[in-house]
Amino acid sequence: MVTEKGTISINTENIFPIIKKFLYSDHEIFLRELVSNAVDATQKIKKLSSIGQFDGELGDLKIKVSFDKDAKTITISDKGLGMTADEIKKYINQIAFSGAKEFVEKYKDESDKTQIIGQFGLGFYSAFMVAKEVEIITKSYQDAPAARWFSDGTTEFEISAAEKAERGTDIILHIAEDSEEFLEESKLEQVLVKYGKFLPVEIEFKDKVINNPSPIWVKTPSDLKDEDYIAFYKELYPYSEDPLFWIHLNVDYPFNLTGVLYFPKVKQDFQLNREKIQLYSRQVFITDDVKDIVPEFLQLLHGVIDSPDIPLNVSRSYLQADGNVKRINSHITKKVADKLSDLFREDRKAFEEKWESIGLFVKYGIISDDKFFDRAKDFILLKNTEGACFTIEEYKTKLEANQKDKDGKLVGLYANDISKQDAFIAGAKKREFDVLVFDDVLDAHFINAMESKVENLTFKRVDADTFDKLIDKGLKQEVVLGEDEKKKVEETFKEFVGNNIVQIEALPVDDIPVSIVVPEFMRRYADMSKVNGQGGMFGNMPMMYNLVVNGNHPIIGKIAKEGNENGLAKQLYDLALLSQGMLNGADLTQFIQRSVEKLG
Amino acid sequence: MVTEKGTISINTENIFPIIKKFLYSDHEIFLRELVSNAVDATQKIKKLSSIGQFDGELGDLKIKVSFDKDAKTITISDKGLGMTADEIKKYINQIAFSGAKEFVEKYKDESDKTQIIGQFGLGFYSAFMVAKEVEIITKSYQDAPAARWFSDGTTEFEISAAEKAERGTDIILHIAEDSEEFLEESKLEQVLVKYGKFLPVEIEFKDKVINNPSPIWVKTPSDLKDEDYIAFYKELYPYSEDPLFWIHLNVDYPFNLTGVLYFPKVKQDFQLNREKIQLYSRQVFITDDVKDIVPEFLQLLHGVIDSPDIPLNVSRSYLQADGNVKRINSHITKKVADKLSDLFREDRKAFEEKWESIGLFVKYGIISDDKFFDRAKDFILLKNTEGACFTIEEYKTKLEANQKDKDGKLVGLYANDISKQDAFIAGAKKREFDVLVFDDVLDAHFINAMESKVENLTFKRVDADTFDKLIDKGLKQEVVLGEDEKKKVEETFKEFVGNNIVQIEALPVDDIPVSIVVPEFMRRYADMSKVNGQGGMFGNMPMMYNLVVNGNHPIIGKIAKEGNENGLAKQLYDLALLSQGMLNGADLTQFIQRSVEKLG
Repeated sequence: MVTEKGTISINTENIFPIIKKFLYSDHEIFLRELVSNAVDATQKIKKLSSIGQFDGELGDLKIKVSFDKDAKTITISDKGLGMTADEIKKYINQIAFSGAKEFVEKYKDESDKTQIIGQFGLGFYSAFMVAKEVEIITKSYQDAPAARWFSDGTTEFEISAAEKAERGTDIILHIAEDSEEFLEESKLEQVLVKYGKFLPVEIEFKDKVINNPSPIWVKTPSDLKDEDYIAFYKELYPYSEDPLFWIHLNVDYPFNLTGVLYFPKVKQDFQLNREKIQLYSRQVFITDDVKDIVPEFLQLLHGVIDSPDIPLNVSRSYLQADGNVKRINSHITKKVADKLSDLFREDRKAFEEKWESIGLFVKYGIISDDKFFDRAKDFILLKNTEGACFTIEEYKTKLEANQKDKDGKLVGLYANDISKQDAFIAGAKKREFDVLVFDDVLDAHFINAMESKVENLTFKRVDADTFDKLIDKGLKQEVVLGEDEKKKVEETFKEFVGNNIVQIEALPVDDIPVSIVVPEFMRRYADMSKVNGQGGMFGNMPMMYNLVVNGNHPIIGKIAKEGNENGLAKQLYDLALLSQGMLNGADLTQFIQRSVEKLG
Repeated sequence: MVTEKGTISINTENIFPIIKKFLYSDHEIFLRELVSNAVDATQKIKKLSSIGQFDGELGDLKIKVSFDKDAKTITISDKGLGMTADEIKKYINQIAFSGAKEFVEKYKDESDKTQIIGQFGLGFYSAFMVAKEVEIITKSYQDAPAARWFSDGTTEFEISAAEKAERGTDIILHIAEDSEEFLEESKLEQVLVKYGKFLPVEIEFKDKVINNPSPIWVKTPSDLKDEDYIAFYKELYPYSEDPLFWIHLNVDYPFNLTGVLYFPKVKQDFQLNREKIQLYSRQVFITDDVKDIVPEFLQLLHGVIDSPDIPLNVSRSYLQADGNVKRINSHITKKVADKLSDLFREDRKAFEEKWESIGLFVKYGIISDDKFFDRAKDFILLKNTEGACFTIEEYKTKLEANQKDKDGKLVGLYANDISKQDAFIAGAKKREFDVLVFDDVLDAHFINAMESKVENLTFKRVDADTFDKLIDKGLKQEVVLGEDEKKKVEETFKEFVGNNIVQIEALPVDDIPVSIVVPEFMRRYADMSKVNGQGGMFGNMPMMYNLVVNGNHPIIGKIAKEGNENGLAKQLYDLALLSQGMLNGADLTQFIQRSVEKLG
């Protein structure tokens, strides 16, 4: 057998099913592709005119989209550069020949920003996703007769002479039966607006221009005022509150990226509402699902990103690995951190006021992106029960005075529910300890992150133990009770607490006689399980606690003598449970009944 | 200009980038495609042998996948029917020519189930996603010399003679630099197992067969025991608890579908863990993202679906519109409902025991699929505080006796937290009213669905009002207080409740003197907002409530005289708040302090 060489050929009869099935499976994309081509042709004639290669009248360059329900046609008409019969043969009859590419190479000019959209070849054929027959009627800007191209969706085509006086191209789609939905005005307009809302050439539909050809992100930031940004935000999300602030992205190298990202006001019980960032490629809408393009925590932002460098029509897993996407990702993250840092330095008061919203992004960022902590550490704010805000460094300085334990470790105290932990917060204040508020869903993880990143700092919830143990300064207090008395008290309360621990402590006489504390490590584990949605073992396990008895309280002296003879100890125990929200069900019903009876 | 006809041609130089970019953007797919082709060739030789068109030895038909890290090659070898040089030209050199299709048409035989995988044409070229050069060395089962095909990823190829004694095909991939990860044993094995775990021909990798060629779903249900289903479940999800039960799907017409769906045990605080159903096409793994193929609520199920009739490689929105997908969807829904109905009829006790898990699916189904209620209405279970279960019809009968209001409407009472609502549940029992438990996240919607679907039935939470008003039987009770006394009582309590309403009711003397009820409609609206994650206005608004004063309680008689002079009314109000978990923060701390002082 002789070695034989050849060229792989493609069975063209099969090409249309492949285009239909694989290339654009969303049928409405045809409109995006055809209108993009029209924009492209219009940009080209403007370009040729600007460099003197076309000296005719440009005229009104609006693109017109129209439909005829009876004739079952949709027509896209542009006043762009048009095509000669030869050009049709070159650009239309040879699939995958990139007309735009050739044009760009020929006229490339770094300083000029005329944008070239689309690759004429393949996009055009998306017309057959909705049309059974497609006509092109076109007249070139060059001195050549108008031509008509016609195909019925097979690979056969026909080119003939046409009557057309004006420069430009009309694409006439004879809509197939299964796609007649696109002949509904509302549907057609909706798709047109979806993809074309910000196309750079005016698009007319039903005598109305439906797009904004110069959206804010293509303008120069220094030409824009706050009102412009806010107005654009309202254009994107009509019923929203004003955004907190925004970032104008504008990158040329090593990738091309423009856009405006807004920080929305976020409610405490925030919904992770993604799908609020819209992705464009040269002002053509691509998707509002930017997963994998924008870092997870920044998907909470709103706004627009426009980049011709993000590969389209590819799978998610491919996107994640794409170098440009990775670079865009880290660029956006850096820009956001820089912006936050600027805001903090320029107007700390305003920053503090917005911290409820900003904090959620920042905490989410820290949790989902290990490196973000370093970018954010100087503007992370900690808020105490009085509403005062501190940076981590400031708070460490504050703790130095009164909240350093005998080993030199700084101990921050916090509440996650200032209402439920009111009694403990009051106790801390009596001792001049500061209490932070960590009450959002991300705080369990956020505290862990801070402890692992910041040296010599630990956090304990204000009701995790007695204050002497929370911040162990090594001072030993003695209880007024004798050993036998202590034993009696312990035995009395042990009756109620089951497997939990009774600890008799030397507390100030005016401290509450009995209280319940939940050890930090146990509670934290349970909290984390909850955030992670595991629940499981710890979610369903009754919380372990310690019963703290104030050995110096006079009422405890009484119990040291009489135990629970007249129900005193039980009542104190119930009040301790009540204080921690742990008296429930039949026990609470009985407590209330008993209390009512005593009143009567 | 003369009309000219022609054929659209495809610029082949551009075809590889298109395949790379559009067809399979997940690079690892190359292995699925090439191994599928090998399986295909093996099935074909078996078929030819079985119908007497091949009478040689079949031999060991294992497919072997191997790699050579130094030579940077991956080889896929089969003992299938092989190709002659002419067949290579036909099947390999002409892209999109479907070899498998032609074969099936030629040998189609309804009774025979030999499966034909893949369309040789395009799948093969996915090799170029990872390889810079591809070799085929093949010897046909027909009497023809072995042949070698070679291409370096351009459209140029070369065919020459080859040395190969054994029947079959070796595909040798010379891996490109950017794809060297596939030369790692662990990566290659992982991808091979992922896609090939259940391929119908044995696949050998590193001297080990990595697949199970006869998975449970291709077997006949009557040949299988419970152990087999459970063993397969453990094969799919190694560390799971046993499933509750399963459904073996087996449909021939109007679409082809096999599979086994398992009901897992679900925890009360269930995570919506989708991605547990795997989709196969003729035993080739396709995806574990079955969104749009399986109804949303059934994505909580586990298991395997195998259907050659689900279009692959198409977008989500296209899938949703696909007729087969719709039919498959409704078929699965029907099968699941039938299975549940059978389980209920065959062993109601077992069904009731599993209701905690089953109920979640059913409720989710009712909420997300309007039609599912009708399929499920006969086995929906309602559970009361004593743990007894009723169907809707049974419960309606039960309500007839004692819970019908003056207009003939049946009123079901429910608690959503039997601990918090203990006092109210006790009150209902005293009156011989039954109380249902609706305590999972979906119940707010579920209650609405039942009310809209079941005639003459309404539900009220047990603490939504006094019982006389919850189930208004038209009996008027009179309060023992005179008009002036009533006014004094109302004014006294009005001091505490702000904008909320004080209602003086004629209740039994041994009922609690003061309690708080939350009107059903208000609370329900707030609950729905919470489930829908809106929070918003209602989430942050303090809950409106009514303060119910038992005008017949002796202690209220006292307040009618003295008001709140000695703090009695305040204490009763605090106890009412406490009973509803509404006494918090500083108010609770003070209540406890006051209580301790009284004890001392």
